[in-house]
Amino acid sequence: MTHDSHVQGEESLIQEFLAPLAAGYQGAFGLTDDCAAYSPTPGHDVVVKTDPVAAGVHFFADDAPEDIAWKALAVNVSDLAAKAAVPRAYLMALSFPEAPPRDWMRAFAAGLQAAQSKFGMHLIGGDTDRRPGPLTISMTVFGEVPAGRMLRRGTAQPGDQIYVTGTLGSAAIGLALRRRPDMARDWKLSPGEAAAAVQRYLRPEPRLALRTALGHASAAMDVSDGLLKDLGRMAKASSVAAKLSMAMLPLDSFTRKAVNADPGQWSAVVAAGDDYEVLASVPQSRVRDFVAAAQASGTAVSRIGSIGANTSGAGSSVEITGLDGKPAAFDRTGWDHF
Amino acid sequence: MTHDSHVQGEESLIQEFLAPLAAGYQGAFGLTDDCAAYSPTPGHDVVVKTDPVAAGVHFFADDAPEDIAWKALAVNVSDLAAKAAVPRAYLMALSFPEAPPRDWMRAFAAGLQAAQSKFGMHLIGGDTDRRPGPLTISMTVFGEVPAGRMLRRGTAQPGDQIYVTGTLGSAAIGLALRRRPDMARDWKLSPGEAAAAVQRYLRPEPRLALRTALGHASAAMDVSDGLLKDLGRMAKASSVAAKLSMAMLPLDSFTRKAVNADPGQWSAVVAAGDDYEVLASVPQSRVRDFVAAAQASGTAVSRIGSIGANTSGAGSSVEITGLDGKPAAFDRTGWDHF
Repeated sequence: MTHDSHVQGEESLIQEFLAPLAAGYQGAFGLTDDCAAYSPTPGHDVVVKTDPVAAGVHFFADDAPEDIAWKALAVNVSDLAAKAAVPRAYLMALSFPEAPPRDWMRAFAAGLQAAQSKFGMHLIGGDTDRRPGPLTISMTVFGEVPAGRMLRRGTAQPGDQIYVTGTLGSAAIGLALRRRPDMARDWKLSPGEAAAAVQRYLRPEPRLALRTALGHASAAMDVSDGLLKDLGRMAKASSVAAKLSMAMLPLDSFTRKAVNADPGQWSAVVAAGDDYEVLASVPQSRVRDFVAAAQASGTAVSRIGSIGANTSGAGSSVEITGLDGKPAAFDRTGWDHF
Repeated sequence: MTHDSHVQGEESLIQEFLAPLAAGYQGAFGLTDDCAAYSPTPGHDVVVKTDPVAAGVHFFADDAPEDIAWKALAVNVSDLAAKAAVPRAYLMALSFPEAPPRDWMRAFAAGLQAAQSKFGMHLIGGDTDRRPGPLTISMTVFGEVPAGRMLRRGTAQPGDQIYVTGTLGSAAIGLALRRRPDMARDWKLSPGEAAAAVQRYLRPEPRLALRTALGHASAAMDVSDGLLKDLGRMAKASSVAAKLSMAMLPLDSFTRKAVNADPGQWSAVVAAGDDYEVLASVPQSRVRDFVAAAQASGTAVSRIGSIGANTSGAGSSVEITGLDGKPAAFDRTGWDHF
């Protein structure tokens, strides 16, 4: 491999591969300035989020660069979706252990282009550097909501019904298959099912279409660190208790096969990360409108439980009923970095 | 060392050490939500910047945690200062190779508190995780300018005078002394001078007081990757040529001693990073007002050269005259990560 096959210099990396992603946003200044000027829509708050991803932690270094790029942006946009915010722009800081091959960089930029077009955003600035350690992609995303109207996680009310978009555990099953493709045989998955599961891991789809429906929710957040952990956060922040039923959890067909073959895989459904679905707490009086708006947007939603008063004090704020109708317990309650 | 001496869990890290830094900003929601809601001042653009720093690249892992925190925020705020933006808020993503000691985290938070109070900002959100590689701090800063008025780097005009704040090379001399304290003897520095130099490396001071004066500038940027490189960027973006005089460059007394003892240290002055001063291009007709406003703000500024037409085409856009009155050449032209 010749030296020329790798990106030469920070400015060439920015101008050749990244500046096209900034085209069309005036305040990005073609990525030629030190800062970007974000112009907020009058009367709106800017909903902001940063969640860096690193090779070996959030993705595999040998994942396709298009997929890495997509996921890096999508996991952040998933938070905007759960806050009913409209995505507008993002900053990206890239840290490479070594100068990337030009082909890699071209594919990475193509993945970003696909993702930002789908989500309706522009790259407006960022930073690139080289340092030891894994490839790291630090996105900061900007979305907008009418001023003072960001949907919160801590405002769920007793009597609410708990809804979730899409399916749970699919990405965790995909991750397991990404690591050990032979599990597909144990779980009796078709090649198509196995591929679909891996795709769910590689290409999360932020539930942006749910925005109108979320106008009927009292609280919402995305499920990224596992259902039990994230629902626990919502319950704790809201000072309420949540009750779930395993029988009501929405599963893809491949996940259903996996848990049937190995009931231990239920932990992938209730406690593994990477779902990137939206968890919404909906007052009983708004359920009909919420479901109708979700359906109109083409977003599948499932009721998985309900919110009650927190009578247990400092105890667990999430109870889950197993398939046998008895209280279930899981020793993993979601991903914690510490 | 007992296990209890280290931070236990992501939520405790956030609530115990970081949430106090968010107090007073409503849209930070006490760091209890997934996103923050930034409320822009009506009629303003939000000037945004992200520039992550990593142990071993931008600071030493055994630097005092207060200094690491200060620098991580200050290097980003320096960009806001150069764009004449008023700092408002920041996001911070922290990546630790292992759970930090509680004492370290307490001191780090104290350094952030000191910096954000000085700069007039609040922490409004972020992320923490553990991953292999160096400690990394990824700040995203938010400042404000009247809509459409962000000061650019690419708008310098022939006939402008080039000014710089403070002194050049001080942090590079400090870095050299941080690595090899015995250089102080070779350079005949007093212990006080050596300490002052190291302090310039550890605690950059964003030139926020220059904001009013920058109303008289045609272009500005901060000097972070070395004077020649950054002035070259300004000249290239502006399609002009810049002429510098080494005799006019403002030096601290310790830097003067270092270059006198070892003329090779001039490369620290013109090409090393970490100055975090503001480079401003000022039309001749505005020079008097620029200098008066800078003086009124207590910010030292020095004229170091001038802007001319770019007649050389694709050639070098920065010429520097040496102390002997002849063209000088430096083989390092500033820090490039690739």
